[in-house]
Amino acid sequence: MAEYIAPLQRLIDEFRRLPGIGGKTAVRLAFSVVSGTDEAAQSFSDAILRAKRGIKTCQRCCNWSEDDLCPVCADPDRDGGLVCVVEDARDVMAMERVRDYRGTYHVLGGALSPMNGIGPDSLHIKELLSRLESEEIREVILATNPTVEGEATAMYLARLISPYDVKVTRLAYGIPVGGDLEYADEVTLHRAMTGRQTID
Amino acid sequence: MAEYIAPLQRLIDEFRRLPGIGGKTAVRLAFSVVSGTDEAAQSFSDAILRAKRGIKTCQRCCNWSEDDLCPVCADPDRDGGLVCVVEDARDVMAMERVRDYRGTYHVLGGALSPMNGIGPDSLHIKELLSRLESEEIREVILATNPTVEGEATAMYLARLISPYDVKVTRLAYGIPVGGDLEYADEVTLHRAMTGRQTID
Repeated sequence: MAEYIAPLQRLIDEFRRLPGIGGKTAVRLAFSVVSGTDEAAQSFSDAILRAKRGIKTCQRCCNWSEDDLCPVCADPDRDGGLVCVVEDARDVMAMERVRDYRGTYHVLGGALSPMNGIGPDSLHIKELLSRLESEEIREVILATNPTVEGEATAMYLARLISPYDVKVTRLAYGIPVGGDLEYADEVTLHRAMTGRQTID
Repeated sequence: MAEYIAPLQRLIDEFRRLPGIGGKTAVRLAFSVVSGTDEAAQSFSDAILRAKRGIKTCQRCCNWSEDDLCPVCADPDRDGGLVCVVEDARDVMAMERVRDYRGTYHVLGGALSPMNGIGPDSLHIKELLSRLESEEIREVILATNPTVEGEATAMYLARLISPYDVKVTRLAYGIPVGGDLEYADEVTLHRAMTGRQTID
């Protein structure tokens, strides 16, 4: 008996499949589930299915949503003329935490990555273009991640959107607030220099 | 919309309840489940229920088991005269990994901790005593954790077992293999000194 009993091993394997969960953590989590009450296990199991089944994509912006329209798109107070394009639903939450953005979003569902077989057709780009045609959009803010893939996606989208009569912007690069110049990498520092602003 | 949508928030809360999972990790895990396939979510959900429902305690040693007897108790090659008393099922696995222990186990299901309301009746001590009466046991190895609670439990059990005609032993204390004397705490070092052995 050098192995865990089958149902326990299976649960450990399931936990290991999650991102950032290694072998020892998976064992600890599985033991905690089995040690807990029946109700807790039932509730955990239900939450997984409900989250998976109950969440669909917003018909307008492709954000995660319980209804046909996500809370942002369903809110009449949001400025439909402003569209912030992000890679995934997590980025929407990050932007929402800032609390002063009152426009809408468009969730691409990832970034272009030919190496991983993610081309333009795998992303919600068609949906973005059809919004540009049917809605009155003044500005598209490209807020993909500042990674190679995110950057390439932003450049690709900028070119694609250029025929439309909309302003296209990109989030500012620079030194993060609370950071330390000493530890900033050269590229970030270079971008912070070129993007420097006059103080009024 | 400064909150996650309800089914997602519920799944995040479930993950947060697990030991060692903080807020950001819970969000990452929940997003990974929702981003995954339907089959993966179903399989994860099933694994939780099956582990919880399919695992009971061994009728003899109180270890976790799928059947009435755990694999160790069901193995006729194991030495029933030797009983290693551990706090929980995880400790059985740790001992089994050593691979040279061929006796059986007895799982207490915790350690005495009056502060947390865990008294002798909360542990499988009665079951241990009835095994001492009904089985032919030569030696009981107290392998509770080297913590205050584990120590107190070992002392309590040693006194309880003393009327029976069995040898009672405790795991050796000392410096861990691969450790560094410089970083060993005083108590461990003191125990390693008092428990020193002659080299033949």
